Amino acid sequence: MSRKQTWTAALIVIGDEMLSGRTQDRNIAEVAVWLNRQGVRLAEVRVVPDDPAAIGDAVNALRTSHDYLFTTGGIGPTHDDITVDSIAAALGLPVIIHPEARRMLETYYAARGIELTEARLRMARVPDGAELIPNPTGGPPGVRLGNIFIMAGIPNVAKAMLEALDGQLEGGRPIVSVTVGAFAAESEVADILRETEASHPGSAIGSYPFTRDGRFGANFVVRSEDGELARETGDDLSQRLRAAGFDPVEGGI
Amino acid sequence: MSRKQTWTAALIVIGDEMLSGRTQDRNIAEVAVWLNRQGVRLAEVRVVPDDPAAIGDAVNALRTSHDYLFTTGGIGPTHDDITVDSIAAALGLPVIIHPEARRMLETYYAARGIELTEARLRMARVPDGAELIPNPTGGPPGVRLGNIFIMAGIPNVAKAMLEALDGQLEGGRPIVSVTVGAFAAESEVADILRETEASHPGSAIGSYPFTRDGRFGANFVVRSEDGELARETGDDLSQRLRAAGFDPVEGGI
Repeated sequence: MSRKQTWTAALIVIGDEMLSGRTQDRNIAEVAVWLNRQGVRLAEVRVVPDDPAAIGDAVNALRTSHDYLFTTGGIGPTHDDITVDSIAAALGLPVIIHPEARRMLETYYAARGIELTEARLRMARVPDGAELIPNPTGGPPGVRLGNIFIMAGIPNVAKAMLEALDGQLEGGRPIVSVTVGAFAAESEVADILRETEASHPGSAIGSYPFTRDGRFGANFVVRSEDGELARETGDDLSQRLRAAGFDPVEGGI
Repeated sequence: MSRKQTWTAALIVIGDEMLSGRTQDRNIAEVAVWLNRQGVRLAEVRVVPDDPAAIGDAVNALRTSHDYLFTTGGIGPTHDDITVDSIAAALGLPVIIHPEARRMLETYYAARGIELTEARLRMARVPDGAELIPNPTGGPPGVRLGNIFIMAGIPNVAKAMLEALDGQLEGGRPIVSVTVGAFAAESEVADILRETEASHPGSAIGSYPFTRDGRFGANFVVRSEDGELARETGDDLSQRLRAAGFDPVEGGI
């Protein structure tokens, strides 16, 4: 029985505030780490403005080239929250009021003695055929349409929606990473890194330099879907660094 | 004499570490703010892995659809630094050792009594026809090839390269933003926001909600290339919020 090895996802971060520099994105790293736990690799991210064509083009480019597509941002009650409409338009689907989402909003606002206005009801709009993604923070839900997951942009809400989806995606093996650090200039160890990686096919080594207290250093991250291979490669790298006169720090500096 | 109004740029953030969640990107916001000062709008960002095809596809998709294309990451001395080679391949150009970059590296390492190895010389490699972008931190330079700017991934180095390019790009008018905050749920003011925006064509209002000490609030960011219009729209929004019983905070909360 053959089994698909590598599952990939793309993420579209939606919002003018990311492209103006007003807001520092925090969802990319969160989605990346969560996807890896599901055995899915984040393969590409696009950041696009609050523009229906830009959102639609990115959705259509990415939804078929990856197993899953996630979006963050633009699902609130205001006029600049156009994600649902833009995705529905890109897929040629009508937008409907989801009955369960309407009930959730009715309950939420009734309990607070607040009227369910048209603006608030916007948050129940979904592309026809979509399901809801629970929002454990109590606010409006996210939206799932086939392999597309439409999530909130506020980081703690996005994170809660991801937690609600934990274990629901089919995936492969998570990537295992092993970090080794050393106070070495990257250029001093470039040959060691290349040779170590070449000796362990199936592993990849990334090199991330820093300076601290005026000293050059770098962390070397070995990554593989094979945890045993990642650990072997990390051990080999430590030995080669030690043999070259460096003092490797397992777990990184 | 007609003059181009809107200049746009795209940014490609290169690196497996961004897509694994190991590293939190800090260059997107920095590049966005810097570009705006040059009168150029950051229109799209893509985050791609250390993969020649992924880098090449993104470069070819974005270099012709925007006035400028920036990249960050992958220009160091190690085997995973493949940005220059990937971009040269995507453009069908050979890679050469830039004579000035070689001289800079020779001087840098000679002053430190360190040998200029082949790994270190990698940092002088550029696509044929490229110029150098100064690196005020003293390390290896960035690379400019026509409208493509290839920059370091380390945030303080990327920032220094941007500063070195200050005023060198042709651009239009910077976007001016005016922020007004209020302790209001977004859904309470959605109509006010939409109506205010509609009353001031040429301005856009973004709404960025938060909760603080258990209270709902939001900052509303008015953006326009016309600074006077942005201020007028912000003033109008403040007045409408006040008339609706909210207490607007100019400059945001």
